[in-house]
Amino acid sequence: MSGDLIDAGLLSPVRAGTPVEAAVCDRAWLQAMLDAEAALARAQARLGVVPPRAAEAITRAARAEPLDLRALALAARETANPVVGLVAALKEAVRAVDPEAAGYVHRGSTSQDVFDTGAMLVARRALRPVLADLRTTAEALAHLAAEHRDTPMAGRTLALHAVPTTFGLKAAGWRHLVLDAAERIGAVDAALPVSLGGAAGTLAGYLAAAPLSGSAAAAYPDRLITAFAEETGLARPVLPWHALRSPVADLGSALAFTAGALGKVAVDVQSLVRTEVGEVAEPDGPGRGRSSAMPHKRNPVLSTLLRGAAIQVPPIASILTQCLVSEDERSAGGWHAEWQPLRECLRLTGGAAHTAVQLAEGLRVRPERMRENLALTGSRIVAERIVSVLAPRQGGEAARKLLDDASREAEESGRTLAQVLRDIPGLGLDEDELAALCDPAGYTGAAGPLVDRALRARP
Amino acid sequence: MSGDLIDAGLLSPVRAGTPVEAAVCDRAWLQAMLDAEAALARAQARLGVVPPRAAEAITRAARAEPLDLRALALAARETANPVVGLVAALKEAVRAVDPEAAGYVHRGSTSQDVFDTGAMLVARRALRPVLADLRTTAEALAHLAAEHRDTPMAGRTLALHAVPTTFGLKAAGWRHLVLDAAERIGAVDAALPVSLGGAAGTLAGYLAAAPLSGSAAAAYPDRLITAFAEETGLARPVLPWHALRSPVADLGSALAFTAGALGKVAVDVQSLVRTEVGEVAEPDGPGRGRSSAMPHKRNPVLSTLLRGAAIQVPPIASILTQCLVSEDERSAGGWHAEWQPLRECLRLTGGAAHTAVQLAEGLRVRPERMRENLALTGSRIVAERIVSVLAPRQGGEAARKLLDDASREAEESGRTLAQVLRDIPGLGLDEDELAALCDPAGYTGAAGPLVDRALRARP
Amino acid sequence: MSGDLIDAGLLSPVRAGTPVEAAVCDRAWLQAMLDAEAALARAQARLGVVPPRAAEAITRAARAEPLDLRALALAARETANPVVGLVAALKEAVRAVDPEAAGYVHRGSTSQDVFDTGAMLVARRALRPVLADLRTTAEALAHLAAEHRDTPMAGRTLALHAVPTTFGLKAAGWRHLVLDAAERIGAVDAALPVSLGGAAGTLAGYLAAAPLSGSAAAAYPDRLITAFAEETGLARPVLPWHALRSPVADLGSALAFTAGALGKVAVDVQSLVRTEVGEVAEPDGPGRGRSSAMPHKRNPVLSTLLRGAAIQVPPIASILTQCLVSEDERSAGGWHAEWQPLRECLRLTGGAAHTAVQLAEGLRVRPERMRENLALTGSRIVAERIVSVLAPRQGGEAARKLLDDASREAEESGRTLAQVLRDIPGLGLDEDELAALCDPAGYTGAAGPLVDRALRARP
Amino acid sequence: MSGDLIDAGLLSPVRAGTPVEAAVCDRAWLQAMLDAEAALARAQARLGVVPPRAAEAITRAARAEPLDLRALALAARETANPVVGLVAALKEAVRAVDPEAAGYVHRGSTSQDVFDTGAMLVARRALRPVLADLRTTAEALAHLAAEHRDTPMAGRTLALHAVPTTFGLKAAGWRHLVLDAAERIGAVDAALPVSLGGAAGTLAGYLAAAPLSGSAAAAYPDRLITAFAEETGLARPVLPWHALRSPVADLGSALAFTAGALGKVAVDVQSLVRTEVGEVAEPDGPGRGRSSAMPHKRNPVLSTLLRGAAIQVPPIASILTQCLVSEDERSAGGWHAEWQPLRECLRLTGGAAHTAVQLAEGLRVRPERMRENLALTGSRIVAERIVSVLAPRQGGEAARKLLDDASREAEESGRTLAQVLRDIPGLGLDEDELAALCDPAGYTGAAGPLVDRALRARP
Repeated sequence: MSGDLIDAGLLSPVRAGTPVEAAVCDRAWLQAMLDAEAALARAQARLGVVPPRAAEAITRAARAEPLDLRALALAARETANPVVGLVAALKEAVRAVDPEAAGYVHRGSTSQDVFDTGAMLVARRALRPVLADLRTTAEALAHLAAEHRDTPMAGRTLALHAVPTTFGLKAAGWRHLVLDAAERIGAVDAALPVSLGGAAGTLAGYLAAAPLSGSAAAAYPDRLITAFAEETGLARPVLPWHALRSPVADLGSALAFTAGALGKVAVDVQSLVRTEVGEVAEPDGPGRGRSSAMPHKRNPVLSTLLRGAAIQVPPIASILTQCLVSEDERSAGGWHAEWQPLRECLRLTGGAAHTAVQLAEGLRVRPERMRENLALTGSRIVAERIVSVLAPRQGGEAARKLLDDASREAEESGRTLAQVLRDIPGLGLDEDELAALCDPAGYTGAAGPLVDRALRARP
Repeated sequence: MSGDLIDAGLLSPVRAGTPVEAAVCDRAWLQAMLDAEAALARAQARLGVVPPRAAEAITRAARAEPLDLRALALAARETANPVVGLVAALKEAVRAVDPEAAGYVHRGSTSQDVFDTGAMLVARRALRPVLADLRTTAEALAHLAAEHRDTPMAGRTLALHAVPTTFGLKAAGWRHLVLDAAERIGAVDAALPVSLGGAAGTLAGYLAAAPLSGSAAAAYPDRLITAFAEETGLARPVLPWHALRSPVADLGSALAFTAGALGKVAVDVQSLVRTEVGEVAEPDGPGRGRSSAMPHKRNPVLSTLLRGAAIQVPPIASILTQCLVSEDERSAGGWHAEWQPLRECLRLTGGAAHTAVQLAEGLRVRPERMRENLALTGSRIVAERIVSVLAPRQGGEAARKLLDDASREAEESGRTLAQVLRDIPGLGLDEDELAALCDPAGYTGAAGPLVDRALRARP
Repeated sequence: MSGDLIDAGLLSPVRAGTPVEAAVCDRAWLQAMLDAEAALARAQARLGVVPPRAAEAITRAARAEPLDLRALALAARETANPVVGLVAALKEAVRAVDPEAAGYVHRGSTSQDVFDTGAMLVARRALRPVLADLRTTAEALAHLAAEHRDTPMAGRTLALHAVPTTFGLKAAGWRHLVLDAAERIGAVDAALPVSLGGAAGTLAGYLAAAPLSGSAAAAYPDRLITAFAEETGLARPVLPWHALRSPVADLGSALAFTAGALGKVAVDVQSLVRTEVGEVAEPDGPGRGRSSAMPHKRNPVLSTLLRGAAIQVPPIASILTQCLVSEDERSAGGWHAEWQPLRECLRLTGGAAHTAVQLAEGLRVRPERMRENLALTGSRIVAERIVSVLAPRQGGEAARKLLDDASREAEESGRTLAQVLRDIPGLGLDEDELAALCDPAGYTGAAGPLVDRALRARP
Repeated sequence: MSGDLIDAGLLSPVRAGTPVEAAVCDRAWLQAMLDAEAALARAQARLGVVPPRAAEAITRAARAEPLDLRALALAARETANPVVGLVAALKEAVRAVDPEAAGYVHRGSTSQDVFDTGAMLVARRALRPVLADLRTTAEALAHLAAEHRDTPMAGRTLALHAVPTTFGLKAAGWRHLVLDAAERIGAVDAALPVSLGGAAGTLAGYLAAAPLSGSAAAAYPDRLITAFAEETGLARPVLPWHALRSPVADLGSALAFTAGALGKVAVDVQSLVRTEVGEVAEPDGPGRGRSSAMPHKRNPVLSTLLRGAAIQVPPIASILTQCLVSEDERSAGGWHAEWQPLRECLRLTGGAAHTAVQLAEGLRVRPERMRENLALTGSRIVAERIVSVLAPRQGGEAARKLLDDASREAEESGRTLAQVLRDIPGLGLDEDELAALCDPAGYTGAAGPLVDRALRARP
């Protein structure tokens, strides 16, 4: 089997063909590691340790395209990481254009510096479209929230109608979570650091490669970290982090949060899309949601993909948190266990963010079904309200007891709550008052102002 | 069985008797929920919705101590949460001192507002000692880092000696992670919000309880959120978060990070404490580390406890992230699945932080064993350095090949690397140069300056 | 704070007051470890290594009740396990009744033998009621399956009506999963082994305590393992398993499976209980499902508790699988990380099994609502069937296209599928045939026979 | 980006190029689903529902190779699964060779039947080499166990020397775990079932496609399940399992167990391979274990790969257990969340099993280093033994106290335990007795007989 058949996205439609898939594929990872090597050479060139011409040659040669990806992957079994083979391949490529420059490849460096810097570049390139998709999703949700600020619908708790709410408030809640996710992703993105430590995190190899002494030598580590960070566009770490894995654990947390946040939107949509509920529908498309057997179905595929991702990412991300427990100056297995899970978290979450845009922009809302469903319980959905109206007159306990009984009678008899209450003497509410109190649309509380508050708080 | 035997800490020594255990116990949780009820009454009193005298009576009566904790726990099976029973008990307690005030208990409220606000108060009370312990640990580690800034020891990667480092740099790395943890805990702590939504997150119940109209009614939600936040000392949420679970997911992430960070310290200590290595020892204490069978052992119990916690917390915390996927206005199970895992994460991590103080303050460092171990490989530990010295003269590839061969020969013959190299003609290094180059203590790179950098960056 | 307030079940109603809670509480764990010590003494007595009278004294003294549980828990922080303190306490208790016998306590033994054997005894005692509850649940579900073998209802896939099924088949499926769980629990239960290894798994301490030589010494390990197994009622392990953690990992798997299986029942019930669906209701009870605010609600608390447990157990159980990675002859942290998670898995799953009995025995089924919901799509739910009838005449593709179009038209126009089809010329189906084909109750496939098959397969 | 670059194995060296990687790749998955379609047609042909010639044509056309894998993956985004597109592609391929036969493709079927049956075929094909590798590993470990039955080494607990053991017992323990894994994998493999349910698990579509009535119709489901099982070589399920996910959960458990078991071997090897310990070495190979920077290192790459897999699989497998909680007749997301994690578990574990063969067959054992390390504590490693010898004469407490003190003095003074004890009057042990007692090689307990027992128990 050649390497090209391993994964074409068949088992992971949530990300198949989305931008993040390309951003985190093996070739992209390879390119990012080569970018790290080239940036390192340029950084060293800026500090006079590598001839500028060599740095240029390395930069030019650092191209993933011509490399035999599969051969590098297979070779990685012998060294437990792909960098040893990559360095050999890069040296060869450089040698072909500038023999002398080849000696400056990977100067003073170590596999983990290259791999981890590459991984941070991959993360950077993957997170940018994720962030953009989250913001686009939030924008679409802001429209829904504003448009349906006052569209009444049943608020549901523990699977049952509780009291009325508005669809706008629901959409504002989704947006709030999506912005929470964007905030967390943005913070992690801004902090993605270069990795620079050398064999055991002391920078000894880099210093040995630099013909310096005295205060120049003392200043060199700071200067090299800065130059490397500038050449890659990544942040400057305080310390080498070969075995201090905050950046990877933080990525895991932010991505799991994001997948979970989008999963919340998905389960809400699925709750509303059910045949009996029918309050929203996913956007249509030719062939979208088609069943292999059932002509009448239009499956809610977007929310299905989102929910599938939300189930997967948190446990996978927990691997990255566990890898904080990384022994010595480099772990024998802990580091290696991060790679594929990190990609999977980026890929699933990125695919989910892309899918969320489609869902949020195309969601069809059915206010009439919301109203019909609100009426299903014959106003029992506002029983709480009647208690609060009667409480000052009858006492809280008595009012509650009265509504407990009236609700049960309404349910059992099939009458509306208003009908039952009308027959209770001494309530002190005339027919019109009762009708107004029992209208679910009149008991949406601060739903509208809360929508305003949310849109104002994070414009 | 009475409730008092369920958990006395027997199976979780990492937290048995530590401050966090008391801060998150059932009684503390109960008190926090009562504090939430009382704060709500006072907040409503500030806004003229509850008579001040009633709020005072409620506040006075809101004491967990006299309540039958076990009875409340058992009653919670009927309602799937403990608040329904708690409200009844509180009303009864209030009624005993001020019958009229009883009607103002839980006014317009819902179980989740009380439970979640209580949970945030519990988290606040638990996180403060955790933060303090993390800072104390970091301080102790700062001392170790400074004291051993230049104490050479073997840097180890993939279980083997790599190149030298210093113990100070290792301790500085530990401190860096511990401060990362404190930063994350501190950020989450500062953002812990009150929960205020009413039955379905619209605040309708609270509004119904307030005899307001017009602009006063419109302003009421903001004012109530603010007053409740002030009365509890918690933050003001943008939206009700019954089904927008960022605060809980964030707690999980920060706690898992912290447990993992302390686990890194633990596995490093375990690596160094091994009989063959012996470079550090855990602090002594009467009976500490005693084996039930073996007189000679002093088990590294503190790092064992830390590592045990680090294994447990990340998977448990992943539950909290998964609970972001919370359907409708309140989940039927997702919310309920958070409670015990949240406590367990607080408790294990808090216990670990407390244990870390003992470990960091009492750790005994053995520079002489470090030096002995550095010598174990007959200077092969600095082979990288010799390559970098020879490379400019012989070319990188040739230098690397020479050291590959020399290292192998040294290992097989049992001679030191210096001895082997001395016999290779034409190296261009005299005996003294060779001896200096082969001294592991001379190849610690920027370990010292990196310690300075780390201590400076986060004083 | 005294230990008795740590956990009264307040945060875990799924198990509060259920039998499993008592079976796995600290006191029960303590008693099980004491039972292990006593059984060990009796086993050694049977082999002539301990005087029978001493074994009797130890057995009599091995009572958890008088011990200071909290003190033992606190002491465990110094030794990282509770056995060191327990042995001291037991010796003291024995000494009080028979001073000489005290010397025979824990003879040749090690903490882990006592703890792990105790843990297996706890598991045994906890699993028996779990198994009984699973079987009772399965029995109740068998009744539901038989009674509703032919009660038609909508089969739902991806949140939408797919084709009809019967409630009997759904119940048979639940039962099938519950029996799968019972099978896995039963297999694990039958294999729970004693732990017998001595300090490092060589039995050296036990041999040193036995005044034997030659073939008697050679036979001794087998005989001691057998005697210990017989005294405890547990199984005989092939090898000491201090660091070979199959028994604990297997417990985790079986318990996670069981919680997940019951979670499937729960989410199905929640899907059917929704206000708009209303096809089943949870069993009523005084106060059950009561909301703190809303008079009309009867929350589905049993399925909520089950689902909450199903969310928690799999990630917690994954800790136990991870602890297979247990270094050396006893792990410094891996072993310790198992204890509380093992209890939590037993407790949550056991509580869930107990709750499932209530749900399965009391579930109220509403065939009339099932029928009403089946009619909701105007027979589009049987569109697949019409395709299969038309396919032989029109070809599969054409038939599918025809029904795709007809279904869409029916949905958009609000007409039934039968009405739409009636107007299509040349279908070759008369009014009666069409009516019969469009009756959902006539398209339940092999639902009935599958119920029979399932009940027959596992009587 | 074309699909061929997504994953060439670069980030997962543990499985790159191993047989399991090919067995579970996208193309293999596609072929397995096509095999399921073909087997279904043949099964229906055996029962007279599909013309034999059509079944033959379908079987011939069911080849993954010519299909556009990437296009199918991309199309799956529209339907949330790849089967809808696959069926269309297969129909087209069949139509090209036998237009009439095309109508019999996927007759009465549903996406999930095809996907799940395909997944079980993939699992079957992946597990067979895994099983073979586990057995080969066990065989190699049996040799090690027999050869080193009596090779003494330090038993280590909580990171410290405890009492002596033998390397043979350690290897026998590894083998025991590996055989436990093989047993669990074998049991799951034998039970892998076909999936056959039709649109909602009632087989209605299959029945509608069969022109039968009366008892023939009643017998049809059983006959179809049997025929399909025979055509695929898979087992016959009791019930359709679209939403009863035992087979997938069981796969997850067995694979996580296996990865964990191999992880135990890995961490033990890493513990023994450490520079200071040096008791074993991984098998050499040209370039194996090479560092990108350090000439002297031969990294333990095989155990690193194994441990990396052991960290990843349990959390990923926990996803499969969670997916037991699968609502309705087919979950909207739960099912979809299984696919990639199932593959990842198969792939990581299969790669680990393949790697374990290399490690077990090539492990180099260094008895002389074991002996040297045994001597490191100056016989304190046998302190337990001396206690048991002195106890009968001095009483257990006194003997223990004496050895506590003597051990401490030995450690502090640098003298051997024998030297310290020699100076204590009245011990009643002469010099020779003391020397014999203090020889670690003489205190390996039943290590040898336990090796025999383990090899005998599972030959």
